[in-house]
Amino acid sequence: MKRLTFALVVCALNLTSPADEGMWLFNLPPRQLLRASYQFDATDAWLEHLQKSSVRFNSGGSGSFVSEDGLLISNHHVGADALQKLSTKEKNYLRDGFHARRHAEEIQCLDLELNVLESMEDVTARINAAVKKDADAAVAFAARRKVIAEVEKESLDGTGLRSDVVTLWQGGAYHLYRYKRYTDVRIVFAPEQQIAFYGGDPDNFEFPRYDLDICLFRAYENGKPAKVKNFLKFSPKGAGDGDLVFVSGHPGRTSRLLTVAELAHLRDQATPFRLSALKRLEVLLGNWSARSDENARRAKDDFFGVQNSRKAYDGELGGLLDPDLMEAKNQAETDFKARLAGKPEFADALAAFDQIADATKILAAQAIRRALLEGGMAFNCESFGIARTLLRAGDERPKPNGDRLREFSDSGKVSLELGLFSDKPIYPDLEILTLADSLTFLAGQLGANDPLVLKIFAGKAPRDRAAELINGTKVRDVGCRKRLYAGGASAVAAANDPMIELARLVDADARALRKVSEEQDETKQQAQAAISRARNALLGTAGYPDATFTLRLAFGTVKGSEEDGKPVPALTTYAGLFERAKEMNNRPPFDLPPLWEKRKARLNLKTPFNFVSTCDIIGGNSGSPVVNRAGEFVGIIFDGNLQSLPWDYAFSDRQGRALAVHSAAILEALEKVYGAKEITRELVSGRRSK
Amino acid sequence: MKRLTFALVVCALNLTSPADEGMWLFNLPPRQLLRASYQFDATDAWLEHLQKSSVRFNSGGSGSFVSEDGLLISNHHVGADALQKLSTKEKNYLRDGFHARRHAEEIQCLDLELNVLESMEDVTARINAAVKKDADAAVAFAARRKVIAEVEKESLDGTGLRSDVVTLWQGGAYHLYRYKRYTDVRIVFAPEQQIAFYGGDPDNFEFPRYDLDICLFRAYENGKPAKVKNFLKFSPKGAGDGDLVFVSGHPGRTSRLLTVAELAHLRDQATPFRLSALKRLEVLLGNWSARSDENARRAKDDFFGVQNSRKAYDGELGGLLDPDLMEAKNQAETDFKARLAGKPEFADALAAFDQIADATKILAAQAIRRALLEGGMAFNCESFGIARTLLRAGDERPKPNGDRLREFSDSGKVSLELGLFSDKPIYPDLEILTLADSLTFLAGQLGANDPLVLKIFAGKAPRDRAAELINGTKVRDVGCRKRLYAGGASAVAAANDPMIELARLVDADARALRKVSEEQDETKQQAQAAISRARNALLGTAGYPDATFTLRLAFGTVKGSEEDGKPVPALTTYAGLFERAKEMNNRPPFDLPPLWEKRKARLNLKTPFNFVSTCDIIGGNSGSPVVNRAGEFVGIIFDGNLQSLPWDYAFSDRQGRALAVHSAAILEALEKVYGAKEITRELVSGRRSK
Repeated sequence: MKRLTFALVVCALNLTSPADEGMWLFNLPPRQLLRASYQFDATDAWLEHLQKSSVRFNSGGSGSFVSEDGLLISNHHVGADALQKLSTKEKNYLRDGFHARRHAEEIQCLDLELNVLESMEDVTARINAAVKKDADAAVAFAARRKVIAEVEKESLDGTGLRSDVVTLWQGGAYHLYRYKRYTDVRIVFAPEQQIAFYGGDPDNFEFPRYDLDICLFRAYENGKPAKVKNFLKFSPKGAGDGDLVFVSGHPGRTSRLLTVAELAHLRDQATPFRLSALKRLEVLLGNWSARSDENARRAKDDFFGVQNSRKAYDGELGGLLDPDLMEAKNQAETDFKARLAGKPEFADALAAFDQIADATKILAAQAIRRALLEGGMAFNCESFGIARTLLRAGDERPKPNGDRLREFSDSGKVSLELGLFSDKPIYPDLEILTLADSLTFLAGQLGANDPLVLKIFAGKAPRDRAAELINGTKVRDVGCRKRLYAGGASAVAAANDPMIELARLVDADARALRKVSEEQDETKQQAQAAISRARNALLGTAGYPDATFTLRLAFGTVKGSEEDGKPVPALTTYAGLFERAKEMNNRPPFDLPPLWEKRKARLNLKTPFNFVSTCDIIGGNSGSPVVNRAGEFVGIIFDGNLQSLPWDYAFSDRQGRALAVHSAAILEALEKVYGAKEITRELVSGRRSK
Repeated sequence: MKRLTFALVVCALNLTSPADEGMWLFNLPPRQLLRASYQFDATDAWLEHLQKSSVRFNSGGSGSFVSEDGLLISNHHVGADALQKLSTKEKNYLRDGFHARRHAEEIQCLDLELNVLESMEDVTARINAAVKKDADAAVAFAARRKVIAEVEKESLDGTGLRSDVVTLWQGGAYHLYRYKRYTDVRIVFAPEQQIAFYGGDPDNFEFPRYDLDICLFRAYENGKPAKVKNFLKFSPKGAGDGDLVFVSGHPGRTSRLLTVAELAHLRDQATPFRLSALKRLEVLLGNWSARSDENARRAKDDFFGVQNSRKAYDGELGGLLDPDLMEAKNQAETDFKARLAGKPEFADALAAFDQIADATKILAAQAIRRALLEGGMAFNCESFGIARTLLRAGDERPKPNGDRLREFSDSGKVSLELGLFSDKPIYPDLEILTLADSLTFLAGQLGANDPLVLKIFAGKAPRDRAAELINGTKVRDVGCRKRLYAGGASAVAAANDPMIELARLVDADARALRKVSEEQDETKQQAQAAISRARNALLGTAGYPDATFTLRLAFGTVKGSEEDGKPVPALTTYAGLFERAKEMNNRPPFDLPPLWEKRKARLNLKTPFNFVSTCDIIGGNSGSPVVNRAGEFVGIIFDGNLQSLPWDYAFSDRQGRALAVHSAAILEALEKVYGAKEITRELVSGRRSK
């Protein structure tokens, strides 16, 4: 981790922001900033076209339409979950790639939902009106949950569109987002994982890089390729050094408006705890994978996810432990509080800092127990998640919409059922492995003599208890899930399923922990809203809110950086890929797929491969299109470098960079390596040839 | 982890012990048991010959003499540390193996000390007499330390032999051990790590197994091969299924006499904490190793050690979390206490359980801080260890012998200096990596705002601070170490070395933590001694004490086991090795060294390769000779299976087994694969040909 000079959001968020910072709302775009810095005019039409060409992958990524026939592009690692679910011991699409030459060969993903943002509406006034001023946190939370469910339900009933109320600025505003939903999504093309994730974990978050991290899908409606009005024109030329570029995608979570108390909690407790759990899981899955190829195939997607998160959190923690960042945050907060002091109209904002600190303490005190029991960290397996959903569905669905746990609200029904009834394979051996390990983790956290732990273990050792639960449960059978879901609480109880009964055993504790968390989050939200109002009043425009896995616009320049005094260029080429393989003696994960060795001679080795820009991104932006001034697709985001990892807390473009695959590389590989001419034709022309 | 039926030491330790349990003292051998169970008569001559043929590797393993010309055999993984230290980027002996065909080619290990146990003497009365009854723990500890140092010094001065007072039965007895010391040890032969550790971490602790885990050394005296009187005759036939066999070696540590309070602390706190630190390190070293071959070479030995410990502790924790083990321990302790109750002569033993529980609580409360600051877990790098040794040497050496920290006593001087002045390579990049990571760990444990942490970090991020310390220190220079050691405290202070100053910064805290630990350990020791006296009075002979990395005798039968209802045979063959490689598609770590592929045709594939027995072993037994009734070398211990891992707390031979390399496999490989005829001749004849 290099020392970074951090541009701070908390105070610097106004029009004079010097860096290419910001994850901007499409309904509050940085027009003036773009005009001033780049002489670029972000017109309504330009914005709307980009917005509606952008796609959210509910499995946790971004993407975009690239033809009128519903062709979509995202990252291979965003598609990995779908590829894994469709793979078998015999057909390993995740590892070996996939290529449908005809529509009939395109295979449907098992439980993938895509959303396209159709409209945004500010509903802050209505939400706030429903919450009485001075209501205590529990009452306020319930009232807020109820009015949000109402707004969502009304919108869903009125428009048929997925409708989510999004909390922005930590409660400073509420916007109603309406999405067109695609649930029939099919895979068109994926390269071998070896080239998609070339360099593997060792090169992850590094640059220079050589990854063809792409996956092509097609959205279907009524069994036919969807006809879409908005899609991005694919640029064969792509991005060039120094170009202004934009990223339209779904950054998952940033924490730039957190107070110093919250950051200190993350630094000293939350992130170390999470890292410890991740490293534990990385060792478990890594070693199990090494025992056989089939183990490795079964665990690959989870294993990648764990390694990726671990590296990301390690980087974030590095940022939090950098005194430059924390001292700057500290200073900014002190300065801001000084501006509030003695002004009665900002008394609530000043008090808010202490309220947040108090809430943070309460949350910290129960954080581990909450993560274990409600977060499910103690029961790490698919079967437990399903079992608990069935249990809670039985209890929650009879309640009025507004009183339910959020995930059971009417507006979330389609998504919930899509996940619950997924046919994706679940491997009992892997389930036993991870469940036994997480039960062991539980005992290490709470002590084996904790009364709840004793009940959970039921007199058995973790491994034996895990085997008993996994071998005994019926929830891996989708038919059983459907019956229990339809039958409600009485059917769920009658099933007497050991995993469901385990979920029931911990449910009262888990719900109690969640309730405290939700109330304290509500307290923090109200406090943040007060700070937000004061900030807007004192500092002008509120800039952009923290990321919330909703659509945002970022901008920046294609631009290299400097590391240890040496320049790092902005772009790599195919030639560099072959050099890297040679330098690492073709040792995995630096070996090339056989097809790439074979077709090397056909490739134009000068083709740009990956490139970096100063666009402000974070996890969730994976698969986001990079577009040029003309709104054309010039690349696709797939990673940030190590120096970008602290962007969760503060942006800096001194060394931090967003990494993308170049559009020219995509065309070159599809045509020369994979012979996928029908796809390159569709990309270049924007339509599928008949 | 399979369910085990645990034979309990705490009460079952008498002559009716049904299993092949026990790590017996050579001066208290299980003669009657051997006669009753195996009709074997362990004569004094038989015992003395085996004792004096056995060798302790102070780097943490066991071995034995196998020729009168000082030829020694141990495990490859015991020699790994030495091989690593002698390797360079160009000559990787650890990976590629080593073979000296002439004495002149045998290369000296950098800082390896071997000990051969010459005699044992019971000094319990003298030690106890020096400690006043009812002295408080601090006074008792100081008095005990002083008298131990005196006894050791007297013996050293009188005999010239290394003299250690060994604490047995947790303080129930003290024996003075005198060792002949070899410090000029040279490497004769090592196979490729690939075959020594075939199957790598995935197959570690598993059986069937196919590992040629051997390394041959030669002890030198006065620049010439040592002439030794006692060495083991090498049996070309080796061990057979059903044979009675013995293991003579140095089990490092068992905890079979721990009370339930201590076991619960291990289960709920100590072992989870240690595992968390190990898994963290495994991820760090694994990922760093993956970035380049040279990184991998530099970290290999540490990385293996971490993986090995992690798997071992995971297994131990599995045992502690098995209710069968803990319930049996609980029951045994309850029963034993019931026998003590109401008997005034055992009042001290009854009270001892509470004293141990109290001391355990005090130790638990400071365990993490102690591990970080005194255990050095917060400063994980070679440079810190050296810096602290220099700092403390300056402070300790002027004190009277009996008042010093134990490692600076006169009797330990030779060993201390051997380690301190070692020429072994230290890699600054690896040092920065592990130091930065451990500083980050420190912040996660104590909080970044902890006053001591703030002082340690000196206003820098962990990575920057680590780089500053490692780049700034001079302690990697052996000449500098010698000067500062000779110059004492004033020279050390004048050096103003940043790493030494860091050690100084934490030294007061570290020493205070150590003091509390030592006092509480003393309290526990006194309490254990009381329990021990009561146990001996009530249950007859005291059996064997917990392991203390001193010489012990174990016995058992060459015998397969059963897993998941399927029989596991007692022996594997070379044929099995080639089958395993084929089954795993020669994928690392299941690939064969090129020489083995090439020489396969020469090998007799029916040669026994590895075998299992019911001998009671633990870490530290690595490299122990396995001998038959005639005292001949029939194999060499290199591992235990997964089911043996809970042997730390309780022995069971239901499924637990000790793993060994067969003597026939050693001869076959040396001759047919490596063409090392001069070595096989020396092994078979017991002398080096001229």
